[in-house]
Amino acid sequence: MHRAVRELEAERGRAELTVPLIAARAEVTPSTIYRRWGDLQVLLSDVAVERLRPEGPPADHGNLAADLETWAVEWLEEMSSAAGRAYLHDAVAGDREGGNAGQCSAYAAEQVAVLLDRAAGRGEPAPDVETVLDHLVAPLMYRILFRPGLLDADYARGLARRLLAGGTTGLAE
Amino acid sequence: MHRAVRELEAERGRAELTVPLIAARAEVTPSTIYRRWGDLQVLLSDVAVERLRPEGPPADHGNLAADLETWAVEWLEEMSSAAGRAYLHDAVAGDREGGNAGQCSAYAAEQVAVLLDRAAGRGEPAPDVETVLDHLVAPLMYRILFRPGLLDADYARGLARRLLAGGTTGLAE
Repeated sequence: MHRAVRELEAERGRAELTVPLIAARAEVTPSTIYRRWGDLQVLLSDVAVERLRPEGPPADHGNLAADLETWAVEWLEEMSSAAGRAYLHDAVAGDREGGNAGQCSAYAAEQVAVLLDRAAGRGEPAPDVETVLDHLVAPLMYRILFRPGLLDADYARGLARRLLAGGTTGLAE
Repeated sequence: MHRAVRELEAERGRAELTVPLIAARAEVTPSTIYRRWGDLQVLLSDVAVERLRPEGPPADHGNLAADLETWAVEWLEEMSSAAGRAYLHDAVAGDREGGNAGQCSAYAAEQVAVLLDRAAGRGEPAPDVETVLDHLVAPLMYRILFRPGLLDADYARGLARRLLAGGTTGLAE
């Protein structure tokens, strides 16, 4: 079913997707799709989350600062691309229960945990996963969804640096 | 049109809303709605953003710490309520161009700016609006959308306190 959606989307564009079209491509009846997913938006949400799954563990650059900055820049690049935004949008829009959105966050948390475990193995001081989610992943995601146009690689690097520096948070001094 | 949506939603529930039903209540033809909004999701996004508009400036508690903590707790309470989540969801889902999501963020930025201006007027040190969005609003919104169940008033207060304390960010010491 996921393959049918991906193929049709590539061939015809997302706006043309319909349940009968997807059913025909997947060689099932439309009612099979309605029974399992309820409607098109829920199916698209499931497909989107699958595409947001990381392909492997993040790269090892030898120290936490480099690991975290590089990961943040690459994650931002992926999520804020046209495709990334469309998947995020589908993931959230078709998911009133929060399961698919929760999975998106779990993917980020797993990647961050790999970096932090690696730092611990090197004896480097490191924040915990929740702190990285709150002060690095959350600001990036908030801007992607709510403030497009206000982010770039330097912004992502700056968040990562301030986080590891113990966090000057811009308080006027 | 917005009133027609609100009335029908209250009477029948959100799942029952259709363009023909809304058109009949608003005494227009369905094609009027399709011409202006394209589809139901876009209309619901516009209605949702209107409902997320703050009712007035945030309360003055005499100092920035109290102002910011109180605002964060109240904002979280509103946005994470069942109604708040539904509006946020509608605002984002029906808005591929980012205009309505941008408006949600602009509402928060305006409220925060009022608190920070007030602090400046009292001679208190204060972070800038972007920092408050990144390290207070963004983590709350990220949890509302992606990690429901992991937030409460204490969590919101803790973010506000750490932000004003110049930000211990959880770095292991």
